[in-house]
Amino acid sequence: MTYCLALRTATGIVFAADTRTNAGVDYITSYEKLHVFETAPDRIFVVASAGSLAATQEIIHWLRRDLAATDGRENLNSANHLFEAANYVGRVSRAVQAQHAAALTESGVSGEPTLILGGQINGEPHGIMLIYPQGNFIEASEDTPYLQIGESKYGKPMLDRLGRGLSLDDAARLAVISLEATIRSNLTVGAPIDIMMLHADAFCLARQLRLTEDDAFYRELRTAWQVGIESLFASLPRFDWEDGGQS
Amino acid sequence: MTYCLALRTATGIVFAADTRTNAGVDYITSYEKLHVFETAPDRIFVVASAGSLAATQEIIHWLRRDLAATDGRENLNSANHLFEAANYVGRVSRAVQAQHAAALTESGVSGEPTLILGGQINGEPHGIMLIYPQGNFIEASEDTPYLQIGESKYGKPMLDRLGRGLSLDDAARLAVISLEATIRSNLTVGAPIDIMMLHADAFCLARQLRLTEDDAFYRELRTAWQVGIESLFASLPRFDWEDGGQS
Repeated sequence: MTYCLALRTATGIVFAADTRTNAGVDYITSYEKLHVFETAPDRIFVVASAGSLAATQEIIHWLRRDLAATDGRENLNSANHLFEAANYVGRVSRAVQAQHAAALTESGVSGEPTLILGGQINGEPHGIMLIYPQGNFIEASEDTPYLQIGESKYGKPMLDRLGRGLSLDDAARLAVISLEATIRSNLTVGAPIDIMMLHADAFCLARQLRLTEDDAFYRELRTAWQVGIESLFASLPRFDWEDGGQS
Repeated sequence: MTYCLALRTATGIVFAADTRTNAGVDYITSYEKLHVFETAPDRIFVVASAGSLAATQEIIHWLRRDLAATDGRENLNSANHLFEAANYVGRVSRAVQAQHAAALTESGVSGEPTLILGGQINGEPHGIMLIYPQGNFIEASEDTPYLQIGESKYGKPMLDRLGRGLSLDDAARLAVISLEATIRSNLTVGAPIDIMMLHADAFCLARQLRLTEDDAFYRELRTAWQVGIESLFASLPRFDWEDGGQS
């Protein structure tokens, strides 16, 4: 499995992803799941991918091939709006799936990719879109400023508690908290954690970092969160029958 | 869906469950999912149920009918060990499923129940067991002192963080925290929350409570947890590029 997350704030976008890929439980490898496309001065895109690794890798190859082609074909640079780029990526995803569908169905294997496309085209607001395997998409909103793909349930409660009205740096911190909860509770999601951050109207990657298990900041954050949760739990209201906290 | 949870501590067991049942999204009702069997002075059992409501209700009817029968048939009182009771409940579950399997398969509907059986028989330690739809079971351990059925992912991170070495009252508090996270993030799990608590070697229910959304204690606990999490999040370590917390 995989867990990827994008958070949209007033001033930018944070993308975060684990790097674990597994085929069964006995072939576990590490892959980047965030792909940046700085393709022209007026635009930037990041694609986060979950689902079939074969499908998502081929989609990224197709997107890069279309950009390099000189025959005027549709590509990430030909979109005038972010939603057009999402539709184009959805069509590429469908084409990649169609290529292998017969063989995969024969083997009873799902080749479905789910993607998040985020970024900005000059003149439009920055945005994030979740592209379903069927090629259609949904967009994040003020009320739901985040999108998740893959193993999304473990990391959702903290997004629901803390995910609104954040600064971009706080959104990055929350993304790490959400990833870490998932990594602790599910073996198929694993460090290192990749983070990418965009500022609105900048059209280039503002920050890119990789947090390994041993990274000093990641250790400090994990410890502060764990110790803080333990101490908060110890301070919670008692049931009416409790006297000093023991039954 | 449903979310039920059992936590075993050194001194007893806590069971917790939401009460929401839904058939699709337009028929949402409220049902108890914790069933207590105080059947003899030397034993007590609690059964928590998730999955097909029809199947779990019928299983509970069968367990009570077998207890009332006078023909010496197997029932919860005839088990000498907790694992024998689990095997018996598993067989009842299989029999109930077999009755309706053909018709359900025809309609493409799953009638699978998943159960937690917890309690104690005099002379044995208290324990909790998760009974799969196939009738086999797993038991909680020192390392993993909790079992979950139904919509289990949202509420797992806090169990993984805080679930070991607890007093019975702290286990009940943690169960409420785990349920509340799930209720916030998933519409198919809903209040009121039912809690049952057993003390080891007592063979009767120690406490039984129902927390509605408006319950004063539940409101106080929710608020303390939310405010505490917000304040903890605000105090977390900053990235190395941050100066005063804004990017």
